[in-house]
Amino acid sequence: MSAPVLAVIGGGQLARMMTPAATALGITLRVLVESEQASAASAAHDIVVGLPSDPHAIDRLLAEPRPTAVTVEHEHIPAHVFERCAAAGVPIHPGAEALAHARDKVHMRSELTEYGLPMPAWAVAHTSEDVDAFLGANGGEAVAKTARGGYDGKGVRVIADAHDVDDWLAAAAEGGPEVLLEEKVPFTRELAALVARTPSGEIVAWPVVESIQIDGVCTEVIAPAPGVDQEAVQSIARAVAEDLGVVGVLAVELFETADGTLINELAMRPHNSGHWSIDGAVTSQFEQHLRAVLDLPLGDTAPTSAVTVMHNVLGGARAELTDALAEVADPGVKIHLYGKDVKPGRKVGHVNVSGVDVADTRRRAREAAAIVRDGGAA
Amino acid sequence: MSAPVLAVIGGGQLARMMTPAATALGITLRVLVESEQASAASAAHDIVVGLPSDPHAIDRLLAEPRPTAVTVEHEHIPAHVFERCAAAGVPIHPGAEALAHARDKVHMRSELTEYGLPMPAWAVAHTSEDVDAFLGANGGEAVAKTARGGYDGKGVRVIADAHDVDDWLAAAAEGGPEVLLEEKVPFTRELAALVARTPSGEIVAWPVVESIQIDGVCTEVIAPAPGVDQEAVQSIARAVAEDLGVVGVLAVELFETADGTLINELAMRPHNSGHWSIDGAVTSQFEQHLRAVLDLPLGDTAPTSAVTVMHNVLGGARAELTDALAEVADPGVKIHLYGKDVKPGRKVGHVNVSGVDVADTRRRAREAAAIVRDGGAA
Repeated sequence: MSAPVLAVIGGGQLARMMTPAATALGITLRVLVESEQASAASAAHDIVVGLPSDPHAIDRLLAEPRPTAVTVEHEHIPAHVFERCAAAGVPIHPGAEALAHARDKVHMRSELTEYGLPMPAWAVAHTSEDVDAFLGANGGEAVAKTARGGYDGKGVRVIADAHDVDDWLAAAAEGGPEVLLEEKVPFTRELAALVARTPSGEIVAWPVVESIQIDGVCTEVIAPAPGVDQEAVQSIARAVAEDLGVVGVLAVELFETADGTLINELAMRPHNSGHWSIDGAVTSQFEQHLRAVLDLPLGDTAPTSAVTVMHNVLGGARAELTDALAEVADPGVKIHLYGKDVKPGRKVGHVNVSGVDVADTRRRAREAAAIVRDGGAA
Repeated sequence: MSAPVLAVIGGGQLARMMTPAATALGITLRVLVESEQASAASAAHDIVVGLPSDPHAIDRLLAEPRPTAVTVEHEHIPAHVFERCAAAGVPIHPGAEALAHARDKVHMRSELTEYGLPMPAWAVAHTSEDVDAFLGANGGEAVAKTARGGYDGKGVRVIADAHDVDDWLAAAAEGGPEVLLEEKVPFTRELAALVARTPSGEIVAWPVVESIQIDGVCTEVIAPAPGVDQEAVQSIARAVAEDLGVVGVLAVELFETADGTLINELAMRPHNSGHWSIDGAVTSQFEQHLRAVLDLPLGDTAPTSAVTVMHNVLGGARAELTDALAEVADPGVKIHLYGKDVKPGRKVGHVNVSGVDVADTRRRAREAAAIVRDGGAA
C-alpha cells in the first residue's frame, strides 16, 4: 500500500495535532520543520528539516513520492512556495490569494468590507493626522495594529493619542507593515466560528464557541458558546470562507456586542479556538483540515457532549510537563502536550473536559490546566 | 523537554493505534517492528527494527534514553525479553506470569477454574480415549484448541470424532502445544468485557460490548451490548484482571447463554473488541493501555454516544484503501486504516459509527466498511 502524502509547512503543535488524524486515515504526513526538536517532528510520519524561505527545503518537501497536496499551519508563506507548488503541479491549500487575507489585516478589512460583512469601523493611518481623525471619530480611543506579523497580542496596541504609534508610522513609511486603526469595540464577549471548506465548495461549521482571552492570548474556550444564535454567527464564517475562497479550516474570531457580532481576526488553518473538537466533536478540526485540503467528503461537526471546555496550558513553573500526567486525577480530563520546551507564557499544551454543566466543566478544565502548568498550588 | 519513552513489542495495528494517544500525552513511543513496512512503523515516534526473539533488538529497545516501561501488542514474548527487562531495571507490563495465561489456553483454564470463575466444561486430551470420554460427557461435540499459537479461528476445530485431532495429539506427544477440549457452548451471543488495571491496582471497565464473529473472526462490535447486565459481566473481567495480576488492558471474550455468561478467551493488550472506544468513549483503550502500563491515573471509560458500532474492514477487492476516503460520504463514519498490504480476509482497517438507534448505526457501519473494502457494490 502506498499511502498518499500530504505535505505541511510548519512544524508547531498544529502540524503535530494533524498527525493522529493522518495516521487514522492512512495518510503520510510529511512536515517541514525548523528542527528535529520541533513540536511536530517526532509525531510526523516523515519530516523535512528546513525553513519555508529555503527553496531547497521546499523542493525536498515536494519530492517523490509527490504529495497529493500541500497545506500550512501558519500564514507566513513566501511567494516562492506557491510558485514551486505550481511548477510541481501540486495544489496548495489555502492558496496564495486566500492566505493573503489572513496575513495582511488591511487586505482582510478591505476585502470583507467589499463583501458587506459586519466589521468594526477601521482605517489605514499614514500620518498622525490620520490617527487623530480616527480617534476623534471613535470616542478618543482605538486599537492600532500592524497589518502584518502580529499574533497573540503582539503587534496590537490600545491607543488614545496620535503619537502612540509614531514608531509604527515611521516603519510603515519605510516599507514596513501598514498601520491599521480599528474601533475599540465595546464587546460583551469574544466568539469564534470555525468552518471548513473543500476545493469542491463543500462547507461545514462547528458550533460557535466562546473564547476567553487574557492579555490578548486565548486562555479558555467554551463549546458551544452559551446563548448564541448559532446559525447567525456561523453564516458570517461561511460567507468569509466562500467570499475569500478559503480551502481548509477557517477560524473567524468575532466580537459579540449589544448590536450584533463583528469580525475581529481570521486564521486559515486549525486554530486554538478549535482544539476542543479533538475530544468534543465527531470530527476534529485536524481531521477536517486534512479532509478539506485533500478534497474528501467533510466529517460531521456535531458536538459529542453538552459542553466541552478547552483550557490552554501556558508555560509556568513546571519544566517537565509529562510529570503532571501522574497528578491529574480527574478521569475526564483529556491532556494534550505539545512536546515544546517550557517558556513563561508559551502555549505548551491544553486540556479538554466535556460535561453537562458549563460552570463545573470550566472549573475542572481550569484546575487541570493549573496542575499541568505548575502543580496547581493556589 | 525530554519525553518519557514507552517501549512496545510488536509493530502491528495495535501499536500503530497507541501512537496518537502517546503523542497527546507527550510520550515517546518506541516500537519494535519486524520491518520498516510494519503497520506501526511510520506512525511510531521511534522504531527499532527486529524480532522479539533477537536479543540485540531487545537491547536496542531498552537503550538510552531508557524506557520508563515496556509493553506488548501480542502475547508471543520469549522468556529472554523478561530477563533483559529485569536486568535493565525496566518494568514490563503485562508481566511474564500474567501473559502466560493469555498465551496458553490450558494454563488460563486451570487458573481461572481455581478462582471459581464461570467457564465452559474443559479438559486436556492426551489420547483419543481422552477425546472420546470428553465427547461422551458433552453431547458428542466439542471445541478442540491447541493450547498455544491460535488466533482468529486458527488452531480451533469443532469436532465430533476422537480422530479429528489425531494430528494435534501426535504433535503434543512430541512436545507441541497441548490439546484443549471445551464444551461447545450453546451461546445466544458473544460478549467482550474490557478492563484496564494499573500496577497500583486501580481498575476500570468499559461498557460490555456484543461481538459478532464470522468464521471465528471478529466482524462487528456493538457498544454497549444491548440488554446486558453490565455490572455482572464487568465483574467477571475485573476478577480475571485481579486474580491474574494483569497490568494494562485486558479483554475477556465471553459466551452469553441462557444460564449465564462463560469465559471464552483472554487477551492482555488492546483488543479488536475495544476499537469502538477510539471514537465512542471518553478514554480509548489505547490511551488507557499507556496510562495503565505507566501507572498513571486511569481515564473515564464512559461512552460518548447511545451506541457505537465498530465494523472491521477485511481485505477484499480494493488494493489502495485510501482511495475509499473519497467514496465514504456518511459524515459520521470514522475511518481507521492500518497501512497494511491488502490480503484476502486480513484485518486492514475498521470503521466506527456512533448513533442513537442500534439497527441504523449497524447498517451505517456495515455499509461504510463495505465501501472501504471493495466499493460496497452489493
